[in-house]
Order: sequence, then structure tokens, then C-alpha cells
Amino acid sequence: MQDLPSVNRRIVLVSRPAGLPEASNFRLESTDIPAVADGQMLLRNEVLSLDPYMRGRMSEAASYAEPVAIGGTLIGGTVSVVVESRLSQFAVGDRVLAYGGWQDYALSHGEGVVRLTPELTHPSYALGVLGMPGYTAYHGLLRIGEPRTGETVVVAAATGAVGSVVGQIAKLKGCRVVGIAGGEAKCHYATTELGFDACIDHQAADFAEKLRETCHSGIDVYFENVGGAVFSAVLPLLNTGARVPVCGLIALYNAQGLPQGPDLTPVLMRSVLVKRLRVQGFIISDHYDAGHTQFLNEMSGWLASGRIRYREHWTQGLENAPAAFKELMLGGNFGKALVRIGGG
Amino acid sequence: MQDLPSVNRRIVLVSRPAGLPEASNFRLESTDIPAVADGQMLLRNEVLSLDPYMRGRMSEAASYAEPVAIGGTLIGGTVSVVVESRLSQFAVGDRVLAYGGWQDYALSHGEGVVRLTPELTHPSYALGVLGMPGYTAYHGLLRIGEPRTGETVVVAAATGAVGSVVGQIAKLKGCRVVGIAGGEAKCHYATTELGFDACIDHQAADFAEKLRETCHSGIDVYFENVGGAVFSAVLPLLNTGARVPVCGLIALYNAQGLPQGPDLTPVLMRSVLVKRLRVQGFIISDHYDAGHTQFLNEMSGWLASGRIRYREHWTQGLENAPAAFKELMLGGNFGKALVRIGGG
Repeated sequence: MQDLPSVNRRIVLVSRPAGLPEASNFRLESTDIPAVADGQMLLRNEVLSLDPYMRGRMSEAASYAEPVAIGGTLIGGTVSVVVESRLSQFAVGDRVLAYGGWQDYALSHGEGVVRLTPELTHPSYALGVLGMPGYTAYHGLLRIGEPRTGETVVVAAATGAVGSVVGQIAKLKGCRVVGIAGGEAKCHYATTELGFDACIDHQAADFAEKLRETCHSGIDVYFENVGGAVFSAVLPLLNTGARVPVCGLIALYNAQGLPQGPDLTPVLMRSVLVKRLRVQGFIISDHYDAGHTQFLNEMSGWLASGRIRYREHWTQGLENAPAAFKELMLGGNFGKALVRIGGG
Repeated sequence: MQDLPSVNRRIVLVSRPAGLPEASNFRLESTDIPAVADGQMLLRNEVLSLDPYMRGRMSEAASYAEPVAIGGTLIGGTVSVVVESRLSQFAVGDRVLAYGGWQDYALSHGEGVVRLTPELTHPSYALGVLGMPGYTAYHGLLRIGEPRTGETVVVAAATGAVGSVVGQIAKLKGCRVVGIAGGEAKCHYATTELGFDACIDHQAADFAEKLRETCHSGIDVYFENVGGAVFSAVLPLLNTGARVPVCGLIALYNAQGLPQGPDLTPVLMRSVLVKRLRVQGFIISDHYDAGHTQFLNEMSGWLASGRIRYREHWTQGLENAPAAFKELMLGGNFGKALVRIGGG
């Protein structure tokens, strides 16, 4: 373990982004590795997960969680290794899923930390298809979207950590699946590798028209993780009784101010009424109950049998996390965004 | 029965309203009383129900039902008496709930016609608290709103056919109920007669502020039958996990064009996500199943025991139906809007 850093590098928020997060909003600092007190353990973070929700924590606006303070270390899920432990439940060498943040080392009291079995051949899956994004896809699609055989399911960010899983589960449930993704390469991957029935490039000028043609029988479930222009194109295609699980709105996260008028709220509300839509938001952290165990069992089986495929998008080195996060905000990632903290 | 009209008076749509329906959009015509063929019966309409949904049928815009044709008789629920029958299931003298429309007489094949028992002391209740509006309130509140004891339920049009029942059922379920109504008289009635905990006048300049003060613990269920400015005042007060059954949007029905910008759709969608809202539209005609029998049983009991109170707003004479309908659109009614077709 000679290659371990001797200081703790961490990335702190120095200012709140106006719009897209830029390099100037972040600073890489080096501090001492924290000392471990009774009832604590020290984690060395190996892999950092980058997820769209983090953008909300960089803003001051009220949300479902507290914002990161100016000068504070950015938060995030990690795969970490216990390097020192004064907790009976964790031993040095344990590999764990933790909330270690954008840094080399983290102190933990053990709360919310989950030991990963050595049988988990890809520990990073615990941050993706077997973790929060995978469970988000599973719960949102099955419990809120309630897709039925033969229905049309549309999901944006179709090759991302959540969208790719949503579409593949919908296929397993006998649905027709139409993805939306940015660029031809992602669309090709969605249809050839993930088995989607179609995938529409939202960067194309005739995107809305293509979506309408492709969804010739309308849309029964729209898994909302984008918002903005994609939602506008989807809304008129929703069928009577359609369900819209609202999981994220990445297109809005970096918006500065509201779109120009007119105010289209009445169009949305009238659609909700006339088409008897169910539009329902959820935050996956509310749902770590029996459903989560069921998810782990089902998803592990699907992965083992090759029925769910999964792709990761790696960035090397903690110092590159801010740029990778901006890339994620722009849809530049191709698969689940992850940072190998040590790099190299 | 010497006072029966010898011709069939009917009100037809001569032009589609732009905004509020005006007298010029309607014409009172007299035609022959239609002849009854085999498999038909002739109904004399006694009471016509006026309901906000009718505004939608006067427009050409796509909705959940076909619009009334230009030159066609306006549609509507009625309490009617069978005056001639060539149907085995109905006898002359039967009083029925029918879809007789804005006219003295209607031919019917018997489909969707329900015989009213002579024990029903107020036959007009079949058009209100025991009919479509009452079931709308019951289903929307209990099946979609799912109120729990101690929660705060807000309903607009609080003294109307639907709102008054929503609020009273919510009280029976142990909720805190805040009504919204137009004018002091209605607000007084909601608190003193209907038992609401509070009622806010939406005509007051400080309406939004008053609503916020009154809903000091936020809003858990907002029964949406209005839209517009009331919804805008409610949205920031919704609690995490709040439910919004969308039953009607009367404030939008007569709007000409969309409100000026900016586009507030992102504000609504962000609230849905961050607060995990469930916003769900429904049309009561989808739900005439076992739940309807349960409604009839429960509501009959509540009425008999005086636990649900109910008020009607009568207009005399078919010829006054257009003006009464415009009054309903403006919130000028005070209770369920009904027309005694024969007048007098």
C-alpha cells in the first residue's frame, strides 16, 4: 500500500454554480488525513459516483436535502476500503459502499455504510445497476410507472445509469420501449445492445416529429428524468391513463431563470385532467424497505443471466471529477459516470 | 298534466363561446315533441343539472368526450318522468335519472337511465350529492387524495356541488379542512354550516397570504377543481408527499389563450420531484364500478344522519339555463346549480 496518498485530497465548493458548474466553482485542496476517534473508522475512497442529483446540492434553493456549504467537501456515494477501524462491525480491509464524498479519505461512524461481499465481482456496480440508480429505475418504473405488457414505455437519457435499466426492465415486462438519447452512437447502443425497440436522437432537428412517428400508439409510461424540451415533445403523445414517474429533471438543473412565456402550466394541467394522467415524483431514499431487498434479488439474477446489460463511463483521478461532472450535466457521459479516485 | 308544454322547447348551441358563454351562443327553439318508436321511451325533463364539464362540450378542442355540434341540443343530466314507453323496463310515471339535455322532452333507448325510487325524497339529489358530483367528490378525495387523520385538506369552490362534499367527507375522516370560496357569505356558510375549519375568500387581495397563514402546517391533499391563481397559491404550500386529485379546472375553461410568461411549467415539475407530489387527473365516468355502490350506501347514510349537508341553487325555467350556466362559470351559484325546466 505504498501508493497510498499521504494527505487527504478533497474537492470543495468555492462558489455556487450559475448554470453549468464550471472549474471555478471547485477547488482541490490537500489536508491532513483525519485522526480516527472511538466509534469511528477511516475509509479510503476508491470509486466516486457522479449523479445528477448532486447539482441540486450545489445550489442554495430549497430541495429535499441540505445544500453543500461553501467551503465544504462535495458529497457523493463511494466504494471505499476500511483502512482503520474503531468500530466492531467493520474490519480493516472490508470493502464498503459509503457516502465518502469527493475526497481520498473519509471518517465514518458506520451509519448507512454497507459491507460489499467479496463475491461482488464489480464493486462499482454497487454505485450503479445494483445501487441507487438501479433501484431508482426499478422502483420508479415498476411501482409508479406500473407498465403492462404491450404498453409503450419511453425513457430519456436512455443509455445512462437509470434510463438504461428502466428500458431493459420494461422490455423484460413485455413492453415496447422507445429510448431518447443524445447522438447516434448512444441510440445505436440502445437498440443493438440494450434491446430497445427504438431510440430517438434528441439532438436531431426533427426530434419531436420522429418521436411522434415512432410512438404511433401513444405513450403509456414516460419515465421522466430530463424535463424541458423532451417533456414538451412527450406530453401531447401521452395516452389516456398514462403514468409519469418523475425521477429527475436534468435539463432544468442548470437553467438560469425560467423559459420565456406564455405560461404553459395550463396545458400541462389540462392534459392531466383530460387524459387522467398520474404525474408522481419520487426520491429513492424514501423507499429503502422490503422493496429494496426484492430489487437486489431480482437485479442480481438479471445481471447474472445477462438479461440486463450495463455500461460504465470512467474518469481517472479525483482532480478530474469537476470536469466529469460538467460532462454529465451536458450528457457527455456514455453509461454510469464514475471516478477512479486514485486515478492512474 | 294540463300544464305540460305541447311543443318541445330546447336550447341549441349556435356558436362556440370565445371565453365566457354568452346569450348569443345559444338559441331557444321550439320543435314538435318527437314520436316514440319501438324500443324507445319519451321522457319529460323536470330538472336539468348544470355542471362545469359542459363548458368543455361547447368547445371544439379535443377532450375526453365529443363536443356538442353547432345547431345541436346541449347535453346534460336530468331528472325526468317517463310519459310514454315502448320499453319493457320502464313504465309511464317512472321518475328517472337520465341524460335528457337542455330541453323539455327527450327520446331514450333506456341506456344509462336509472329509475329513482319513490323513497328518494329529493329526486334532484340524484343530480348532485347522490349523483355524479357527489361521487366525484367521494372517489377523488378518498381513492386519489387518500387523506389521513390529522392531515390538512384544501378544496376550492368550497360551497359547490363537489367542493362542499369533499370538505365534509374530509372532516368525517378526521382531517383539518380549509375551503376556498368566492365571497364572505360562502366562506361563512362553509365554516358554520359545513363544519370546515376555515375558509378563505379568493376574491380578497391578500388571498395567498391568508391561505399560507391558515395552512400553517402545509397542505397534504389539494382537491383541484379550479386551477389558475388558486393553484398558484396552493403549490408552494404543498407538503412532501401531498396528493393532488385533478377533477376540474374551471378557471381555465373560459380562458382565451395562455397566461403571459414566463413559462412556469418547470416550477410545477420541480415541485412534483422535490416534494414527491402525486398529481392525478380523473373523470368520474371511468369509475362506475363496485366503488359506486359503496358510495351510494355511505353517502345515503351520511345524508340521513345529517353528517353531510347539501345546498341547491335553483334557476326557474329552461329559458334561463344559459344565463344560469354563465353564472356558474363565474362562481355566482351558491350550491349545486339546477334548473327547474318547466319554471314557475
